[in-house]
Amino acid sequence: MAADAAAFLARWHRILADRDFDLMKELLADDVTIGAPPHWQRLSGVDLAHHLLCTILQTIEGFTYHREWVSGAEIALEFKGKVRDLDLQGMDIITLDDDGRVLRLDVMIRPLNAVMTLQEVVSERMLAFLAEQKA
Amino acid sequence: MAADAAAFLARWHRILADRDFDLMKELLADDVTIGAPPHWQRLSGVDLAHHLLCTILQTIEGFTYHREWVSGAEIALEFKGKVRDLDLQGMDIITLDDDGRVLRLDVMIRPLNAVMTLQEVVSERMLAFLAEQKA
Repeated sequence: MAADAAAFLARWHRILADRDFDLMKELLADDVTIGAPPHWQRLSGVDLAHHLLCTILQTIEGFTYHREWVSGAEIALEFKGKVRDLDLQGMDIITLDDDGRVLRLDVMIRPLNAVMTLQEVVSERMLAFLAEQKA
Repeated sequence: MAADAAAFLARWHRILADRDFDLMKELLADDVTIGAPPHWQRLSGVDLAHHLLCTILQTIEGFTYHREWVSGAEIALEFKGKVRDLDLQGMDIITLDDDGRVLRLDVMIRPLNAVMTLQEVVSERMLAFLAEQKA
């Protein structure tokens, strides 16, 4: 495993275990982009990405990582959890930049009903966040 | 990379390149299960799994694999393609059995509209297949 990826994963898992989401921002590149489960269009920028990520992580109950793969700066993490009693399984696909921060994150989740329920909750919270930013 | 995984991937990619889907059946364990993108409930058994897999692969236009991770008998493959002009990105998460065949396959796809469109086409073809099996 590349040293950067090992160091990143140690910090990433610690943050998730402690649910210390503020610290997560330090692990995101300024120009990070996220490909979220519902949309093809990517979200970009550290503030928006951080808020989306925190919202997803706080919405999925019993979020836990399972299988893990690393290939250089490319990381694949399997997770499981529930949203409103619906089981879900997903993958975080992460590309690290040269500083060992997340440059690109793609999130894929199955099944369909869990993605739709997650989207419902998350988009409501994201709209509130965006309205607040504008105000 | 485990010898089994390397041998499996060489055959898997050759089958995809040649679009020789009949051969794919040899790479599936008799008791293979598939976690498809739309449903939580897994499909099991080689005939059903093979038919579902072929139907998905034939429905996604320009299906190509991109990033690839291997950890022992656990494999993660990123793919991209289109369904009815909708871009999609997905992951095949594969567990090999001791004979180097697929024991478990989980498929996750984003975005939502592509999964819904794919489901529409695939479920129609799967129902036709199941009706034929029964007849």
